[in-house]
Amino acid sequence: MERLEQQFAFLREIDKEKMIGRQTYLTDAVRKENDAEHAWHMAIMTLLLSEYANEEIDVLRTISMLLIHDIVEIDAGDTYAYDMEAKKTQRQREERAAERIFGMLPSDQREKMRTLWEEFEACETKEAKFARSMDNIQPMMLNAATDGKAWEEHEVRLSQILKRNQRTKEGSETLWKYAKENFIDPNIEKKRIVDDRNKKE
Amino acid sequence: MERLEQQFAFLREIDKEKMIGRQTYLTDAVRKENDAEHAWHMAIMTLLLSEYANEEIDVLRTISMLLIHDIVEIDAGDTYAYDMEAKKTQRQREERAAERIFGMLPSDQREKMRTLWEEFEACETKEAKFARSMDNIQPMMLNAATDGKAWEEHEVRLSQILKRNQRTKEGSETLWKYAKENFIDPNIEKKRIVDDRNKKE
Repeated sequence: MERLEQQFAFLREIDKEKMIGRQTYLTDAVRKENDAEHAWHMAIMTLLLSEYANEEIDVLRTISMLLIHDIVEIDAGDTYAYDMEAKKTQRQREERAAERIFGMLPSDQREKMRTLWEEFEACETKEAKFARSMDNIQPMMLNAATDGKAWEEHEVRLSQILKRNQRTKEGSETLWKYAKENFIDPNIEKKRIVDDRNKKE
Repeated sequence: MERLEQQFAFLREIDKEKMIGRQTYLTDAVRKENDAEHAWHMAIMTLLLSEYANEEIDVLRTISMLLIHDIVEIDAGDTYAYDMEAKKTQRQREERAAERIFGMLPSDQREKMRTLWEEFEACETKEAKFARSMDNIQPMMLNAATDGKAWEEHEVRLSQILKRNQRTKEGSETLWKYAKENFIDPNIEKKRIVDDRNKKE
């Protein structure tokens, strides 16, 4: 039964992901979502939107990556996309977390989960690229649905969004185009995203 | 772009699942979990525990079922496992919900999602049986982790738990045995579950 003990200890431990808050508001614009909710949402997005991937993807592999990739934040915390100070130490904090948390599993599954996490982080395979585009488009969809509330609160600039989304199109040209035209552009127009295109730095 | 419009309208709509509360406490024993968190947790359980399924299962199909099966509760609400009055109207309420919510999708995906939901409900395929065992074991795991808090609050009786879990072993004999011995039995012992084995009704 030791294998099962390890598996259930891990499954109890990751319950904490439900307590890791993100900066994105739910569509009710009242409460912010947590990592577990975010992962669930992206998994269903993948089920429905994988048809737009630039190359045909392994859906189970992509969903698995999305389900587990934020588990490291149980120890490392959520690093807000536009918090440049926190981003400096993010990788180191998350590696230690991966070591500890995936380390609770039997060795074969520890390796499997760790490999999936590394694959997401490296963003080189077509599955990782698509997963990354989900990870970028899901909060954009919610931000747009809440009239840009999170963007306004953080005074997010267009250049920051475009930098973060430099590689979103590598997962899906179609979805990036749709997100740009439907989630970003109207919110530049409405001044919920700071338009810094003509600003000299 | 109409197909994408429909898909994103659905994806925004299901955000509401994050607001549907359940009776199970998180492992911190403070907040109760919601449907989206529950679905995420079961999807990872399936990734790690499918090796114990009585018959080899299609993991993607099982996870897909688990990810979407509670979407109907956006309209129908969460029906507590031991609320016998609410259970009487559950099926009808949920069918109307499935019609409306999955109805937002393009017709091919509407059919696919609806079929997955019906498969889960019917509990006849090996994937649906395993999914159902996850749906029963996940809250048991959390209830046990919180010293039976939800069981005590609802004065749940052993006979109710056993009735609800009549078919859990059809998904996995091994996991049902483990859950019984590790989650249920110790909590009968500690009187957190009402032991009604010798009670005449």
